[in-house]
Amino acid sequence: MTLTMHLGVIICLVVGVVCSAVVDQKLSRNSSWTGKLLVVPMDGSHWTGVKAVAEEMGRRGHTVIVVIPEISMRLGPGKHYITKKFPVQYKQDLINQIMVEHVNEVAASEQSLLKTVTSIMYRFGKIIDHFISTSESLFQEQELIEFLRDQNFDAVLTNPAMPMGAILAYNLSVPAVYMLRGIMCESKATACPNPPSYIPRFFTQISDRMTFSERVINTLVSLLEPLMCRLMLGSFEEMTSKFLHRDVSITEILSTAAVWLMRYDFTLEFPKPLMPNMITIGGINCEVKNPLTKEVEEFVNGSGEHGIVVFSLGSLVSSMPKEKADIFFKAFSMIPQRVLWRYTGEIPNNVPENVKLMKWLPQNDLLGHPKARAFITHGGTHGIYEGICHGVPMVMLPLFGDQADNVHRVATRGVGVILSIHDITVETLLDALNSVINNSSYKQKMQKLSAIHNDRPIQPLDLAVFWTEFVMRHKGADHLRPAAHELNWLQYHSLDVIGFMLLIVLIVTLAMLKCCSLCWRRCCRKTQKRKED
Amino acid sequence: MTLTMHLGVIICLVVGVVCSAVVDQKLSRNSSWTGKLLVVPMDGSHWTGVKAVAEEMGRRGHTVIVVIPEISMRLGPGKHYITKKFPVQYKQDLINQIMVEHVNEVAASEQSLLKTVTSIMYRFGKIIDHFISTSESLFQEQELIEFLRDQNFDAVLTNPAMPMGAILAYNLSVPAVYMLRGIMCESKATACPNPPSYIPRFFTQISDRMTFSERVINTLVSLLEPLMCRLMLGSFEEMTSKFLHRDVSITEILSTAAVWLMRYDFTLEFPKPLMPNMITIGGINCEVKNPLTKEVEEFVNGSGEHGIVVFSLGSLVSSMPKEKADIFFKAFSMIPQRVLWRYTGEIPNNVPENVKLMKWLPQNDLLGHPKARAFITHGGTHGIYEGICHGVPMVMLPLFGDQADNVHRVATRGVGVILSIHDITVETLLDALNSVINNSSYKQKMQKLSAIHNDRPIQPLDLAVFWTEFVMRHKGADHLRPAAHELNWLQYHSLDVIGFMLLIVLIVTLAMLKCCSLCWRRCCRKTQKRKED
Repeated sequence: MTLTMHLGVIICLVVGVVCSAVVDQKLSRNSSWTGKLLVVPMDGSHWTGVKAVAEEMGRRGHTVIVVIPEISMRLGPGKHYITKKFPVQYKQDLINQIMVEHVNEVAASEQSLLKTVTSIMYRFGKIIDHFISTSESLFQEQELIEFLRDQNFDAVLTNPAMPMGAILAYNLSVPAVYMLRGIMCESKATACPNPPSYIPRFFTQISDRMTFSERVINTLVSLLEPLMCRLMLGSFEEMTSKFLHRDVSITEILSTAAVWLMRYDFTLEFPKPLMPNMITIGGINCEVKNPLTKEVEEFVNGSGEHGIVVFSLGSLVSSMPKEKADIFFKAFSMIPQRVLWRYTGEIPNNVPENVKLMKWLPQNDLLGHPKARAFITHGGTHGIYEGICHGVPMVMLPLFGDQADNVHRVATRGVGVILSIHDITVETLLDALNSVINNSSYKQKMQKLSAIHNDRPIQPLDLAVFWTEFVMRHKGADHLRPAAHELNWLQYHSLDVIGFMLLIVLIVTLAMLKCCSLCWRRCCRKTQKRKED
Repeated sequence: MTLTMHLGVIICLVVGVVCSAVVDQKLSRNSSWTGKLLVVPMDGSHWTGVKAVAEEMGRRGHTVIVVIPEISMRLGPGKHYITKKFPVQYKQDLINQIMVEHVNEVAASEQSLLKTVTSIMYRFGKIIDHFISTSESLFQEQELIEFLRDQNFDAVLTNPAMPMGAILAYNLSVPAVYMLRGIMCESKATACPNPPSYIPRFFTQISDRMTFSERVINTLVSLLEPLMCRLMLGSFEEMTSKFLHRDVSITEILSTAAVWLMRYDFTLEFPKPLMPNMITIGGINCEVKNPLTKEVEEFVNGSGEHGIVVFSLGSLVSSMPKEKADIFFKAFSMIPQRVLWRYTGEIPNNVPENVKLMKWLPQNDLLGHPKARAFITHGGTHGIYEGICHGVPMVMLPLFGDQADNVHRVATRGVGVILSIHDITVETLLDALNSVINNSSYKQKMQKLSAIHNDRPIQPLDLAVFWTEFVMRHKGADHLRPAAHELNWLQYHSLDVIGFMLLIVLIVTLAMLKCCSLCWRRCCRKTQKRKED
């Protein structure tokens, strides 16, 4: 019998291996082939998706080297990749200060437009300066750069919103794979058409069905985009020219990307054109699942039929001023659900029994739990896609950047309620929670949206890995590069051709008019002559 | 020991079933769900891809009903679907006559542009008339239409180039999945941007890297497209209005499609924008493989190291006039390869030993054979993708429609040689065959192109089936429908917004000028007054 069991186990193992091999082969051809991938990530929530791909690539046997600054918010080592750190000019204090400023933003009350814009520009400038400082630090590390050059990487995976990785890929002459949610210069760098008549711009909070006045605003913003793009990336150019020893614009560098992995899909984003090398991978981190700890699992299961509310304001805002926090504590004490809140601030005495404060929240795992009833989020894309993936309606408190646009898209789908963090009250919060939990319309619409989002021929993480491997295998994706990149603005819009055609029409018309007038004069003269005769 | 073996087999079977289930689940979620699909195919080579999907859908357990006319060139029953035939006004003679006319075209020598255009327009008109007659016949079959209505289909799969299926889907209010290589009205019906500055138009034989004069020609052709679209589909509108009991344009009907399965990919097509509901499935029939018959296998294997040449001019042209055929026979007698030729014409006495004439050619299976060295083709997309899929360089003899464009794309990639059927000689044919077989550049480039073409996250047939099932499961794909469909031409191009902005600028400028002139006058007057004083 022992022999039988042994044989059974062996057969099972062998067949299991074959089975796994069949699955892998079906999902990824050439799975035996491995290469070298350089990853240059951007700090903050952007890391989530890039890390998932880096880990998976490493797990599949590729050599993955992740280059990160010594000091960062979230960047760090992983199980399946090698980390290379480089020294930076700033200290941990700077990172803390940036985070404190974000927390202060939460404390602030509603501001005038001018103040809001000034505050955005200030924070924006600070982040850009931080990025430039980081990039300069890397590019000064001659030894590290030479080490990377010697590796002969097959591809670079990076986020172009912080173009350090893109510049490095360009310098190393290695094809680049970009992963991003969107940048101002994207339309120019991808050559993807972007008509403002139905594609709403960032920061406008307009939907794809626009009134005339909305179209006017959207067109105006789209006209400002090149300027914004210059503001965002132009400041990198001096440093880039120094590093590359020649003048080259960042847009030109970005336009050399082999593949753009776009961190969105059309359950959230409004439908718009894509270029063949733009691959949508929205919801990439939904699959990265881990079991809950025993303590959390018990707390969640103890919520009974009422279930739980998951609350996180993202990686930048993990605490809030006492007065603001009190509003949430009070509201939570009045609902039957249990609440799990990512909160690193001072813990007050009066924390309601149904609230669990956690320094780190397994957000995706909690949202994937059958007891999840609502998700209070700042509206970052990762969180929103996790909510959609697991079909959990949302109460949204947008804070910075694209969050206002994201939450507007969610609200348009009827699967979430928007509140303002600046003037939130116990009543508005309770109302919103009550709506998304007890009004079945939210749940039904969310389930439909979730079903569509999850119904794909291939999961986004596998797709991202496939395209990264594709670029590595074929040394780029030249067959997907549109010829539009070789045209200037006038040529692209055929304005020179139209001008030429109009000129021809003008010349022909003038020639015909001249002919007519000559004929007319001749006729007139003849008639006159005859009359004179 | 017998027990051990039994146990082993049982474990093996159980794990095997689990393994297969995992593979299936990874490739197609909800595989247990089945629905009802109506297929309204178009005759000719278009049938190949549609039939592959219909068969696969049936094999997966869906109820698939294929509606076809009683008389057709290629449409017919299959293993996994039900066929419903409807009577038509024409006889088999008409089909034969159309095919004879195509064969005559092969016989003709090079014609003047005017004659070519007239001939194209004549054949085009004849095919459109044939399509209209077929559609009218179907729409008159009240009983069949009511039967189809009662089936409550989940989706209709059809080719919009012959809009009978699209009109029927619209009438039955069932979401439509289109499969096509391209139609003139596609840009308007999909709302997909199509800049003429780098996207070459049909029939121009221009590549995506254009000179100024090519851009002028391409722009002119793009300006003619709406007219061509009207010519192509406008003639269906009278019949459509009668059938639907209301006026509706064919473009409007086409724009309601849920998903467009585009029968191309970017190893052949030049990169261009796509809308989210446009899915590229080029090379869909490459996977539909069958073993060769023993006789054919023996003939192929007997070719030794020299290998074989596969020769087919498509489903419409299976014979050719004797003088033309003699050129081919003579050339083939002078090459060391064996040739398999789809030929239904009169068989002459002097057929060389190395040539095998076949009434039906297992083209894809032959091209997939390791001995395939060259493919002589008319340049239909199915054949070209089969050639690319199996990495076989081509000698191309374009005959009709989009074939001249297709072969031009192949030639641009350096993987094939174009010849004209009208002035082909033994020498030119030998030269071409010699190049693609013995010049390693063709083979190398083709292998690279083939590797790229075959390197996909999911095979095109699976992708086509997935999206058909997606539309069936979700009753359409509304989340992929761009808002552009709700805008008119002026709005889409933001011309009303630009006009409004210019008006504002004009008014402000005029107001400022008026102010200045008022100020100026006042100043002048004062100065004058002072002077007078």
